[in-house]
Amino acid sequence: MSGNVNRQILLVEKPSGKLGAQHFRMVEGAIPEPKDGEALLRVRYISLDAANRAWMHGATYRSAVETNTVMAGGAIAEVISSRAPELAPGDIVFGDTGWQDYAAVPAKQLTKMPKMEPLTHLLSVFGIAGLTAYFGLLEIGKPKAGETVVVSAAAGSVGSIVGQIARIKGCRVVGIAGGKDKCNWLTSDLGFDAAVDYKDGAVFKALRAAAPNGIDVYFDNVGGDILEACLPQMNNYGRIACCGAISQYDGVPSAHGPRGVPGLIVVKRLIMQGFIVMDFMESRDRALSDLQAWVSSGKLKVQEDVIAGLENTPKALIGLLAGENRGKRMIKL
Amino acid sequence: MSGNVNRQILLVEKPSGKLGAQHFRMVEGAIPEPKDGEALLRVRYISLDAANRAWMHGATYRSAVETNTVMAGGAIAEVISSRAPELAPGDIVFGDTGWQDYAAVPAKQLTKMPKMEPLTHLLSVFGIAGLTAYFGLLEIGKPKAGETVVVSAAAGSVGSIVGQIARIKGCRVVGIAGGKDKCNWLTSDLGFDAAVDYKDGAVFKALRAAAPNGIDVYFDNVGGDILEACLPQMNNYGRIACCGAISQYDGVPSAHGPRGVPGLIVVKRLIMQGFIVMDFMESRDRALSDLQAWVSSGKLKVQEDVIAGLENTPKALIGLLAGENRGKRMIKL
Repeated sequence: MSGNVNRQILLVEKPSGKLGAQHFRMVEGAIPEPKDGEALLRVRYISLDAANRAWMHGATYRSAVETNTVMAGGAIAEVISSRAPELAPGDIVFGDTGWQDYAAVPAKQLTKMPKMEPLTHLLSVFGIAGLTAYFGLLEIGKPKAGETVVVSAAAGSVGSIVGQIARIKGCRVVGIAGGKDKCNWLTSDLGFDAAVDYKDGAVFKALRAAAPNGIDVYFDNVGGDILEACLPQMNNYGRIACCGAISQYDGVPSAHGPRGVPGLIVVKRLIMQGFIVMDFMESRDRALSDLQAWVSSGKLKVQEDVIAGLENTPKALIGLLAGENRGKRMIKL
Repeated sequence: MSGNVNRQILLVEKPSGKLGAQHFRMVEGAIPEPKDGEALLRVRYISLDAANRAWMHGATYRSAVETNTVMAGGAIAEVISSRAPELAPGDIVFGDTGWQDYAAVPAKQLTKMPKMEPLTHLLSVFGIAGLTAYFGLLEIGKPKAGETVVVSAAAGSVGSIVGQIARIKGCRVVGIAGGKDKCNWLTSDLGFDAAVDYKDGAVFKALRAAAPNGIDVYFDNVGGDILEACLPQMNNYGRIACCGAISQYDGVPSAHGPRGVPGLIVVKRLIMQGFIVMDFMESRDRALSDLQAWVSSGKLKVQEDVIAGLENTPKALIGLLAGENRGKRMIKL
């Protein structure tokens, strides 16, 4: 961010296969003027999420991102000036500012956040990632002490928190992640009972060894082959919390879905349930209070992956889709 | 059934593709002697179900059927003699007698049934079919008045009841069935609002026309392509009651599952839930009381397809898998 220039990263082409740097372009514009009801924001931290890539496919729970507009993305931002009564300069907010230094956004689309140190926690454990893990595991997965919980993308922002909450709730926790380093980190630093490296091949067998009593809750961040490997290992009355399908986002859409649907769902009386964290926002305070208590007591470790510089945002997203990050990845402006 | 001979139909070979008459053989044996705790039964009506075919693939919610044994199957039977205190000659029971004239079965594995006329209703509307429709629709599908309910295999034993209960509950009901005659029957005789003939091709489009406001509840008896056609048309927070996967039973197992799993489940916050009617048996009396009231008042029409002669059982099952029947198919001995 420099002087009175607003740097912006545009999506200039929708990827048909893998996302690349060529799909983006940085431009410089003027700092916008807020209209009535809007606040002018200085963006502080941009959240990077696999969902950013899914938005390029078309409408999801939000409208599709369009080419030659500022790439959409959630961020923590500071209010510079406000033409809305509910916001004042200095306030910290969360909202979809897009990938740019400054944004003028209707106050109604912003959530006022507490001022905390570090601010980054508002995007990780106390932000969408932490709340997604909390509600998805507890409200959809409904784990009971002693049950086995498996989570995919386990070293990611959501998965790393899901596994730790499941441990707090007394479950046996198995994480699926890519690479030996990540797997070691899950078991030695985050307290997972076991980890399966999907890059090692033979996920089905490794999972069988890591979850010898079968799977009661599968928190699915990835879909595809890993979902297919989990399905036959689900116990009767198991729950699959469908959080995302990262394996399907970056590239050509899959030609088919997982085998075993719906046959195994019938025979094992499984529940597969999709959710979006926004649907649980009325219970946000309760969730934050639990998460804060666990972080303070050291039961829940927060892992963040902060990269400096707006210009690095495309590369950071591309890397996230390739599984480069550990914990919550974000851009510091 | 003739004199003191027990005719039995054996499964002599497990089909690798489509089921055929050559997979069965009829033999004659002696009428068995009941052991302590068992009752000797004379089989009256054998239930034919798509699930019979699924049992040949391997263990499901029950163990697999084995070759060179009497083919398994539920039936209504009369107690001839009893070595169990809870059963007496003349009692009517439901249980897995297998495809034969007589069976000696442990009393613990039998359910005593009321003596009613016609006895066939104990296999159709007041039997597994009716209870499956009742619990699957109401407990898993949870339809609300004004919602759109879609049911596949709609002219079958379960589907025809599902659609009628959904109408009773004030829903818009769309049935998917094979052939113009079945579809006409659904709308003109059973009160379905619309019917889609899957043999006519273009199921997706026909469904869009029949369910213009989207689908809130999909009662899935078939899986496969029809499930795939329904998924993108589900409304947010829709429920898919997974009852069976008939499309997958008779032939080579499908190489892949439905596209859209889990992506659409996430985005639309769907619930896909499998169930087995046995899990709801504690609420059986309530269900039977509702079903009886609807039948008496004429709100629920009972369609049965009764074929005479044990020797016709294989052909009747093969025909059922090809979609020949309307309503509950059974064999009268």
